[in-house]
Amino acid sequence: MSKTLQISERGTALPQSPIRKLAPLATAAEDRGVKIYRLNIGQPDLPTPKKALDVLKHIDRTTLEYSPSQGFLSLRKTLTEYYDKFDIRLNPDEIIVTTGGSEALLFAFMSCLNPGDEIIMPEPAYANYMSFAITAGVKITPVISTIEEGFRLPKIEDFEKLINERTKAILICNPNNPTGYVYTKEELLKLRDLVKKHNLYLFSDEVYREFIYTGTPYVSAMTLEGVEDNVVMVDSVSKRYSECGIRIGALVTRNAQVRATVMKLCQARLSPPLVGQLIAEASVHGTEDYAREVFEEYLKRRDCLVEGVNRIPGCFTPMPMGAFYTVVSLPVEDAEEFCAWCLSDFAWKDEHTPEGKTGETVMMAPASGFYTNKESGRNQARMAYVLKTDDIKRALLVLEKALEAYKNR
Amino acid sequence: MSKTLQISERGTALPQSPIRKLAPLATAAEDRGVKIYRLNIGQPDLPTPKKALDVLKHIDRTTLEYSPSQGFLSLRKTLTEYYDKFDIRLNPDEIIVTTGGSEALLFAFMSCLNPGDEIIMPEPAYANYMSFAITAGVKITPVISTIEEGFRLPKIEDFEKLINERTKAILICNPNNPTGYVYTKEELLKLRDLVKKHNLYLFSDEVYREFIYTGTPYVSAMTLEGVEDNVVMVDSVSKRYSECGIRIGALVTRNAQVRATVMKLCQARLSPPLVGQLIAEASVHGTEDYAREVFEEYLKRRDCLVEGVNRIPGCFTPMPMGAFYTVVSLPVEDAEEFCAWCLSDFAWKDEHTPEGKTGETVMMAPASGFYTNKESGRNQARMAYVLKTDDIKRALLVLEKALEAYKNR
Repeated sequence: MSKTLQISERGTALPQSPIRKLAPLATAAEDRGVKIYRLNIGQPDLPTPKKALDVLKHIDRTTLEYSPSQGFLSLRKTLTEYYDKFDIRLNPDEIIVTTGGSEALLFAFMSCLNPGDEIIMPEPAYANYMSFAITAGVKITPVISTIEEGFRLPKIEDFEKLINERTKAILICNPNNPTGYVYTKEELLKLRDLVKKHNLYLFSDEVYREFIYTGTPYVSAMTLEGVEDNVVMVDSVSKRYSECGIRIGALVTRNAQVRATVMKLCQARLSPPLVGQLIAEASVHGTEDYAREVFEEYLKRRDCLVEGVNRIPGCFTPMPMGAFYTVVSLPVEDAEEFCAWCLSDFAWKDEHTPEGKTGETVMMAPASGFYTNKESGRNQARMAYVLKTDDIKRALLVLEKALEAYKNR
Repeated sequence: MSKTLQISERGTALPQSPIRKLAPLATAAEDRGVKIYRLNIGQPDLPTPKKALDVLKHIDRTTLEYSPSQGFLSLRKTLTEYYDKFDIRLNPDEIIVTTGGSEALLFAFMSCLNPGDEIIMPEPAYANYMSFAITAGVKITPVISTIEEGFRLPKIEDFEKLINERTKAILICNPNNPTGYVYTKEELLKLRDLVKKHNLYLFSDEVYREFIYTGTPYVSAMTLEGVEDNVVMVDSVSKRYSECGIRIGALVTRNAQVRATVMKLCQARLSPPLVGQLIAEASVHGTEDYAREVFEEYLKRRDCLVEGVNRIPGCFTPMPMGAFYTVVSLPVEDAEEFCAWCLSDFAWKDEHTPEGKTGETVMMAPASGFYTNKESGRNQARMAYVLKTDDIKRALLVLEKALEAYKNR
């Protein structure tokens, strides 16, 4: 009867993201005195709104007690006012405050899907979707969007032919991480018709809605008519107010049965973070100037990055319409190998290298982490434009030098 | 091919706790002007240490960014010093900071157990264990501890005869919620031998270690020799510093493979709450006076509640050794029904009833929520001694009157 202690199958199946594999190489490079331009992460360097930070100084509670499992009503009311601006009409009951968008995603999968069920999802896609799916025992079936087509929504027939009796949902991220693509109204209507026809859930992660740089109007899945019960929106205040650390997100749906089920999971974990909710609530109103400045800064950075990348021989990226990422094809066979090499074997030094540094290099996220099939996007990397433009320019010079050296290595 | 939108099987299986069912009755009673003595919840009314609250005023960060997925190293180092006091020798790598003890439990189940695996657990037990087990697809097999025996650990043979090839773990809560029992060294050594013999995980929830009122020495499962790889301790700062709202817990294990797996789940959810970690870290040192005061207050409350309950005809509770709960057997057939009746049909009024109130009643947690088999503990309720002693005394008078009225209804 004796057995060995085992790790669960889902635990074993959980992917180790390529970025995590790069982390020790980055640490070693820094130990050698190399300055790293980090284009790999989605952690904005911009400040949190002062109004939100000031909340911390004025919390006059004597006990930091549990908050309601659904989140404070005052926060949910404030969020309805925020969503109003995007033509998403909600009542506070339809919003469940979660511990980041991460928890909203996991709870959506856990509540709507059985182990063995399938989700169809355009790829490349946010790497952690895969982790949440594995955690929930769910299978993700990818439809590939291509860099040549600017990562627009794959043909709806490509989705439809993957639908089988286990298919229960479609998952999109709009604006998209990692591609920066913003789905058009036409594309969303096609998705609407598809989920309606097959009665699928439509999980829509819309945490980057504040970052849309083109004339493309943002169309929330929550505004699609005729699929009110199908749509579950995932949201987060992390990116829009540069407050990733407070861990406040939301699961939003008009489907009362889904909400009742998600609430059981919420009650088991007791409550979302108290202090984070106070900060999030203060971030919504009176931060319009902040939002405008942040928007303009990202717009500048996007243009700087995209123009710069496309000037490097052999590099190509389509113009991202939203979020603060773009996927770049590199003149290398294996971007994962190249990204590692940049950290382990390369450092550029000239008269502009900061004093005391032995050299400079770049860190990017190999796109293999954003595809279920590692061969897809093998020569691609994701770059986040979360650095100041001067640093982006320097990073791109260093990247160009790295590509030359890599070719001649 | 068309199907209806469904809720997941696990979502449907998730229990609705009896306390949640009472919530609308409590709201209605309050709307009628009835004052409710809430003995039902584990939310301490005591203040958070001032030192911890002061942290909020001195956060000088400009960006509330992601913290490391494992939690801040400084917090983990501080926790090793805290655990030292309990003879738990750890290095910071062996601690993973989680979003409350809740996340630690869920991640432990997810990482160590496959769907269909079984956990043996003494009952009555914390209701949310069942929710986390269902979420992870795991089956809980209960061993009943009885009120007559003061809820001591059931005979080890009772555990052993339930072990089959799917049994992978034993789960205990020590000191125990809801019974207040503290396992003796002898009991823990028996559990040690059992998990060693069958190579099971031993999940040990020890969030109430600061609250032990008897000479019983607290023995952490982390100090058991020969089962270093088997033990996963779940912890939380919520109860010991009265800061449930910050959502900071920990998963602690010497098993490196388990930690590596839990870390994959942690990376997917990005990071534990940032501000909560700063508060938790400040709570550990320099709060000894606070801890002593809190301890003495709970001790007084415990004595007040237990003596008072045992004076009511037909009521019985053993003397709880730890935590701030006790399970009481009531002179009723169905405690769930009685607890609901107290809110819906009863209110006591005399010259001591607070002005403006139409009456007073008590709210308790029916023990059925703490058993997998609802018939067990059918006449029991859990009472939390989280009220001031004057309020506890008054609550017990009201309870006695309610029992009389219920009998004669």
